[in-house]
Amino acid sequence: MADLVLENLQRVVTCAPGGSRGPLLGPAMGDLAPLAGDLCVAVAAGRVAYTGPRSGLPAALAVAPRRDCGGLLLTPALVDCHTHPAFVKARAEEFELRLQGASYEQIAAKGGGILSSTRAVREGGTAALLAATRRNLARLRAHGVAVAEGKSGYGLSAEHELRQLRAIREAGEALDLHTVRTCLAAHSLPAEFRGSPEQREQYLGQVCDEILPAAARDGLATRADVFCEQGVFTPNEALRVGRAAQAAGLRVTVHAEQLHPSGGALAAATLGADSADHLEYAGPAEFAALHAAGTAAVLLPGSTHCLRMDRWANGRAMVDAGLCVALATDFNPGSSPVANPAFVMNLSVLHCGLTPAEALAAFTVNAAHALRLPPGEFGVITPGARAAFALWDVDHEREIAYYAGSNLCAEVITCDGWRS
Amino acid sequence: MADLVLENLQRVVTCAPGGSRGPLLGPAMGDLAPLAGDLCVAVAAGRVAYTGPRSGLPAALAVAPRRDCGGLLLTPALVDCHTHPAFVKARAEEFELRLQGASYEQIAAKGGGILSSTRAVREGGTAALLAATRRNLARLRAHGVAVAEGKSGYGLSAEHELRQLRAIREAGEALDLHTVRTCLAAHSLPAEFRGSPEQREQYLGQVCDEILPAAARDGLATRADVFCEQGVFTPNEALRVGRAAQAAGLRVTVHAEQLHPSGGALAAATLGADSADHLEYAGPAEFAALHAAGTAAVLLPGSTHCLRMDRWANGRAMVDAGLCVALATDFNPGSSPVANPAFVMNLSVLHCGLTPAEALAAFTVNAAHALRLPPGEFGVITPGARAAFALWDVDHEREIAYYAGSNLCAEVITCDGWRS
Repeated sequence: MADLVLENLQRVVTCAPGGSRGPLLGPAMGDLAPLAGDLCVAVAAGRVAYTGPRSGLPAALAVAPRRDCGGLLLTPALVDCHTHPAFVKARAEEFELRLQGASYEQIAAKGGGILSSTRAVREGGTAALLAATRRNLARLRAHGVAVAEGKSGYGLSAEHELRQLRAIREAGEALDLHTVRTCLAAHSLPAEFRGSPEQREQYLGQVCDEILPAAARDGLATRADVFCEQGVFTPNEALRVGRAAQAAGLRVTVHAEQLHPSGGALAAATLGADSADHLEYAGPAEFAALHAAGTAAVLLPGSTHCLRMDRWANGRAMVDAGLCVALATDFNPGSSPVANPAFVMNLSVLHCGLTPAEALAAFTVNAAHALRLPPGEFGVITPGARAAFALWDVDHEREIAYYAGSNLCAEVITCDGWRS
Repeated sequence: MADLVLENLQRVVTCAPGGSRGPLLGPAMGDLAPLAGDLCVAVAAGRVAYTGPRSGLPAALAVAPRRDCGGLLLTPALVDCHTHPAFVKARAEEFELRLQGASYEQIAAKGGGILSSTRAVREGGTAALLAATRRNLARLRAHGVAVAEGKSGYGLSAEHELRQLRAIREAGEALDLHTVRTCLAAHSLPAEFRGSPEQREQYLGQVCDEILPAAARDGLATRADVFCEQGVFTPNEALRVGRAAQAAGLRVTVHAEQLHPSGGALAAATLGADSADHLEYAGPAEFAALHAAGTAAVLLPGSTHCLRMDRWANGRAMVDAGLCVALATDFNPGSSPVANPAFVMNLSVLHCGLTPAEALAAFTVNAAHALRLPPGEFGVITPGARAAFALWDVDHEREIAYYAGSNLCAEVITCDGWRS
């Protein structure tokens, strides 16, 4: 159905950007431009053509098929701008070790963590990886997501990184999700390169000279990410990987300041990255640098929850510093097995200082901006926007962040042609 | 379908009680008796008749209709033994006040909290309450629940308490849920009785002499609850209400030690209550008293999360003290708008010291015991058990508590006749 009228909506939250400081920044985040009453949304050729009172629907649009939305609330489909969906198996056994007292870093040092997911991806074969990736992305869709960033990073070789990116592309197409694919070959040093500094150098060279250019070919990936963290990659290595990615035609994002002050945020700013992600240990100096660079801040409090960290990213200070703040699930098999954006919104209002309205903006319009998707097309319900919606069994948009850890998304609705 | 064969199950978790210390206690909690392989579960006349390898299915049962379960994992349908589903409206506006710094108790003191839900129930009319209750219970069912305890407590008068209990009964029937109804007239002192100690006494007299006996009539409620908390009802008042309930033929449960050491747990033990619920501030003395009385401990960490309390119930110590520990959502419009048992399990393993296996036992077999449902009928998949199942999109039962704040329950399956 390229043309469609969604009717019997009691509330439509457009998430249209606005506010005196310009789109996406600061005060605009709380301005979701909700409409209330007997509303409808009309779609023509896969794009939003009308949003407003049913009585005002233009006659030319009124001939399209109708869909009764049961008096529910409509938002843009959610944009999940940071996920790791190409995994084979949840690391729930390691979770039990962590519950018994082992730290995430201790488990990683013993060959668990990212390297354990890497073994599963490498050994599982292409078909199993595709099936698992599809299952994982379907979980996100069931919780309101139609646009998902997806990272590789459990392949850690040209062959397996590309296999992951292809799995994300194919699974997204099968599920009618719009995917933004990010090569994360610089997620961890693979086990076979940990023997000496020369091997480290060799792998980084492979990432820069071989894997990233291969991932960029034919648009398989459009972005690269680098895991800048104590014990993983240094800020200088992040700069090197980021510049190689940019030379290959990829945009860049950086994992920054999650477990320690890592220097990742400043590296992201130096690179002019799309976003710096995590930021639990970032402060005013990092916020200022990101602001000056136009780099978005992506908060991932699902991982903070799952790792039982007591340090949450200071979203309030980031909004007040004028940053474009987005939220994402960080859905992955280990540190954030969280497929529910509404739960991430709940954590962000309880612990990161966002308001419920800001949290919804952070998972729609701001997340689209963090991915540098074309303005006005994703994460909003305004004329010309792609026809992808989330229908919610709630009375008011603030309730999305309220029903903690519950999934009240009734359905994701996408219309033929919305992805093209 | 009174008769049915569920086939193509890769794992069935029976939650059958066992262990050397007897059913439901201590070590038994971690013993969920999982089966793995190519499994099926056969139902005859609304009861489980066979669980095991497909190849072993008795011929007499093999003639029933078949249902392909897609290789997923089956558990007993969840038993949610503490909920407040008869509410009209989520108190999400008060949530925003709390985010800005107001405490739950401050909001209650200003006429918010329970009294605000009471106004909504009284003013909304019978049909609106039924519709809302049905919507609320449907949310629980969508997250794996087929047996739900439901409390009144937002009526606070004979007329409105009974209206709530009837709404829970009717909504449960419409949704094919088994409901256990609990009169919570002693939830709060109604606004119109707060003028003097005489009015307090008058309301308590009304609860004991009028409301509880009326609720007990025709089995509308089978239990009574009393909110024993600093500033609400004292332990002596809890004893008085509990004894009146027992005299009216009701079983008893007590809200105990949530926000302060309230004396509620000892009152519960004195009454021989089915359970003492919350217990954040309970310690060894309370555990010993509950154990001696055979009273179950019901943990509600969803409320701890939503209220941002830093004190979690010590489930580990309770299990180790030999208590029957159950978990529940405490689903309600204010302090725990949590409709997802899996999220409560996640919180219990992260913060209360339960293992993932114990958390699942706590939401099935132990929850059924906390409600004193007939042993072997609810919360287990053993021959003779009621045919109510939850189908999960996970590979292992430990993953139910792992995918934090996500809903991976694919479906609740109930068979005709299972409730009778």
